[in-house]
Amino acid sequence: MNDNTTEQSNGQDDAGRDARHKARMVRKKEVVDAKIAAAQDERGVIVITTGNGKGKSSSGFGMVVRALGHGMRAGVVQFIKGAQPTGEEMFLRRFPDVCDFHVMGEGYTWETQDRARDVAKAEAAWEVARGMLRDPSIGLVLLDELNIALKLHYLDVDGVIADLRARPPMQHVVITGRGAPPALVEAADTVTDMVPVKHAFQQGIKAQRGVEM
Amino acid sequence: MNDNTTEQSNGQDDAGRDARHKARMVRKKEVVDAKIAAAQDERGVIVITTGNGKGKSSSGFGMVVRALGHGMRAGVVQFIKGAQPTGEEMFLRRFPDVCDFHVMGEGYTWETQDRARDVAKAEAAWEVARGMLRDPSIGLVLLDELNIALKLHYLDVDGVIADLRARPPMQHVVITGRGAPPALVEAADTVTDMVPVKHAFQQGIKAQRGVEM
Repeated sequence: MNDNTTEQSNGQDDAGRDARHKARMVRKKEVVDAKIAAAQDERGVIVITTGNGKGKSSSGFGMVVRALGHGMRAGVVQFIKGAQPTGEEMFLRRFPDVCDFHVMGEGYTWETQDRARDVAKAEAAWEVARGMLRDPSIGLVLLDELNIALKLHYLDVDGVIADLRARPPMQHVVITGRGAPPALVEAADTVTDMVPVKHAFQQGIKAQRGVEM
Repeated sequence: MNDNTTEQSNGQDDAGRDARHKARMVRKKEVVDAKIAAAQDERGVIVITTGNGKGKSSSGFGMVVRALGHGMRAGVVQFIKGAQPTGEEMFLRRFPDVCDFHVMGEGYTWETQDRARDVAKAEAAWEVARGMLRDPSIGLVLLDELNIALKLHYLDVDGVIADLRARPPMQHVVITGRGAPPALVEAADTVTDMVPVKHAFQQGIKAQRGVEM
C-alpha cells in the first residue's frame, strides 16, 4: 500500500476506485437488505440510554420529537428536576395536546440531601408514569433519569419492570440516566452505553443553554 | 455486611441510613459546587456523538429542541437522506422561522453505489452548512451524519475544521455519525462514543417509527 495513492491519482485511478466502490456497495446492500428483510416484528420497544457520557436525555427528547412528527402522542416524566426549566421543557410544553410533560423529581440527591423526601417524590413520579403506561393513546413514553431513581433504590426495579411489561403492545418507552440496573437492561430491547471521550465541562466551560439544558 | 439489613430495618435503622445519606450528599454537593464554580467559560461548543450505538442523531435533535426552547434559532443539515421523511423532519419543518431544515444527502452509500454523485451531494450539503456557520443569528447547527461523509472522504476534514473554527463564537455545533475522524474529535469540546449493548434490530424487530425514524 502506498500513502501517496490519492496524490498520484489520475482519471483512470478514479474510475478504478469508483468501480471498486460500486462493487463493494452492491455487496453491502445485499447484506443490509437481507438483515432488513429478516427484521419484521413490529411492536413497542424499550430503549435505554445509560452511561456517563453526554447525550442520554437529549437522545430521549429526540425520540419524542420523532414520535410527534409521525403524529403519535408522547408522555414525558422527568425524575430529576433542575433549578430552572430546561429548553426541552419550555419547547414541548407548547404542545400540551400531543405531549404530556411532567417534571416530578426534586433536584439531584446531593441538592435535596433528604432521602425520605426523594423516595416520596420518586413514588409520586412513578404513579404518573404508570398512568401513561396504561394509556394506549400514548405512542411513546420518556422516563427521563429513571435509572438514577432505581440505582438509588428510590423505586423497586421489579415493580417498574412489571408495569413496563403490562403496557400497550405498540407503545415505546425510552428510559435514560446513568447506572441502568442489570434487570432493566435485560428487560429492554435496545440499550446504548454512552461513553464520555471528553466533555467541555472538564475544560472549564459552563453548561450551555441548548446543549446541556 | 448482612443481606437482611433492609428486611430487619426499623425506625432507628432508617434514621441512621438517612443521616448517613445526608452526610454523604453534603460532601458530594461541595465537590459538585466547586466544579461548577470552576467552569465559567461561556462560548459555543462543538459536540460530537459517534460510535455504533443507537442515539446519535436523536441526541442531536434533542439539542435542537433545547435550543428552540431557549428562543434560539437552529439549523439542520442531514448528510444522509432516507427513503422517507423522518419524524424529526416532519416535526421540525413546522417551524421554518426558527429551524432551517435541509436534507441534502442521497441515501446511504450502499443504496446509491455511485461515489462521484455522493461526493457532489456532500459538497453541496457542506455549502449549505457553511452558510449556517457564518450566520450569528443561528444559535445551534446540527450536522447530522457528517462523520460518515468525512469517513468516506467525500469531504476534506481540514476544510471542515477550518469552517467550524471560523464560526460565530457563541454558536454551538452538533456533529453526528459513526467513525468521527480523530482530527475532528481533537477539535471538539464534548465527544461521546455511543456503544451498543444490544439492539432490537438484532432480535428481529423492524425499525420503529418514533424510535429509529
